Amino acid sequence: MSGVTRFGIAMESGLLDKFDRLILKKGYANRSEAIRDLVRNNLVEEEWKLGNQETVGTITIVYNHHIHELNGALADLQHRYHAEIISCMHVHLDAHNCLEVLAVKGRPQKIKRIADTLIATKGVKHGKLVMTTTGKDI
Amino acid sequence: MSGVTRFGIAMESGLLDKFDRLILKKGYANRSEAIRDLVRNNLVEEEWKLGNQETVGTITIVYNHHIHELNGALADLQHRYHAEIISCMHVHLDAHNCLEVLAVKGRPQKIKRIADTLIATKGVKHGKLVMTTTGKDI
Amino acid sequence: MSGVTRFGIAMESGLLDKFDRLILKKGYANRSEAIRDLVRNNLVEEEWKLGNQETVGTITIVYNHHIHELNGALADLQHRYHAEIISCMHVHLDAHNCLEVLAVKGRPQKIKRIADTLIATKGVKHGKLVMTTTGKDI
Amino acid sequence: MSGVTRFGIAMESGLLDKFDRLILKKGYANRSEAIRDLVRNNLVEEEWKLGNQETVGTITIVYNHHIHELNGALADLQHRYHAEIISCMHVHLDAHNCLEVLAVKGRPQKIKRIADTLIATKGVKHGKLVMTTTGKDI
Repeated sequence: MSGVTRFGIAMESGLLDKFDRLILKKGYANRSEAIRDLVRNNLVEEEWKLGNQETVGTITIVYNHHIHELNGALADLQHRYHAEIISCMHVHLDAHNCLEVLAVKGRPQKIKRIADTLIATKGVKHGKLVMTTTGKDI
Repeated sequence: MSGVTRFGIAMESGLLDKFDRLILKKGYANRSEAIRDLVRNNLVEEEWKLGNQETVGTITIVYNHHIHELNGALADLQHRYHAEIISCMHVHLDAHNCLEVLAVKGRPQKIKRIADTLIATKGVKHGKLVMTTTGKDI
Repeated sequence: MSGVTRFGIAMESGLLDKFDRLILKKGYANRSEAIRDLVRNNLVEEEWKLGNQETVGTITIVYNHHIHELNGALADLQHRYHAEIISCMHVHLDAHNCLEVLAVKGRPQKIKRIADTLIATKGVKHGKLVMTTTGKDI
Repeated sequence: MSGVTRFGIAMESGLLDKFDRLILKKGYANRSEAIRDLVRNNLVEEEWKLGNQETVGTITIVYNHHIHELNGALADLQHRYHAEIISCMHVHLDAHNCLEVLAVKGRPQKIKRIADTLIATKGVKHGKLVMTTTGKDI
């Protein structure tokens, strides 16, 4: 693991006051941690824009499992992309609705295509892709 | 379950051509399904803005499990909010990094606070909240 | 201009009721107009992802005009990109702060680079890029 | 104007290297300026969520000026909200399409309602609200 570097930041006192109040409200222990989170967030966004390195995402879908053949269609899709889909969590929301979250690893374009295909499936009511990170060097 | 209503839409032919090409690329079986997805997405966004009804979200975090006392801190947090956190999936990304996804049910403000607190925890490198839906009437 | 096509949509009655209430609140005259807006929005997002056709954006910045040499730096930047920057609106927010909005035409990557450069300039406090459209065939 | 405070940040060297490369690419002169921008962005987002203080936004719309009575409808709307709409820029994109950007000052909810109403107007093809800031204490 890489070492830690210390460096100085200059900030208008009024701006810093406001930031201190915000991070206290959000539950940060100190400024360094809050600023590192802003920096990492910025880097993760950039990583997904460039799109050429393996990264990690999660796909959340909500669907009605009574829709004819939906379970089969979703299972087929997930097996077609078994090389990218690492794991899956299923929650029974009520008698009809299911929440499913998939952890996916691969290139940004591939992960986006898997998300698009799942969300486009008839019976899937809502879906969102989270673009996160492998956590390496970040 | 409610019945189905049919209604007509008028659209410029050039616009419709472009839309047909886009939904074909995304894997939709037909226009109705693609338009229903746009409508549902719009309603879910609104539901989270209003913020007074129970809804569903997922929180994705990536963290380094070697950070001293992080596992304990995350477990404490998740137990404090056990009434809202339905389920949890854990993925070992590599020797250091973990991906965790939590399924959460509650009012928008409460779910957002849980997400803020988890993401602000020292050692959590990246985190995102997905605002989805219970699937009821949607 | 292209003609108009009419087609039918099937939607669960409960979903349609919710959508009707939302679009009434937002001020839409009818469902067709609201659905066309969702479709156009979807197409504009896609156009910016593909990134190879000329399109239109606006860049909003807020800055403190007392910062030494900022006016000169912003003017230099805007002249360097004169081929893309069509027009500019300036608002005096108070004795110190200015709002400036630039209308820009060009390829998505170029417009994003101009926005990044303006926002990164010292003294610019906040900036955002709106990715919109030429309006052609949409 | 408030004074300037200096404080230290600790960051993993690998993370800092990546951040330095990103801000160089975006055109930042130094780390302090890039971090201040991340902090201000965070504060502006929060200000719009809380929604009780006067702030500033810009509304970008693209529309076809040939649509019957659209010019009149947009002018009526803009005059109805004359207390909030500070200024307006109009660009002729081609023989049919217009780009209009409005600078608006007011409470977040009011600015959002003005944006919704303009975007919902028949003939307006695309529209986006930028939530920015008065620049005070930021």
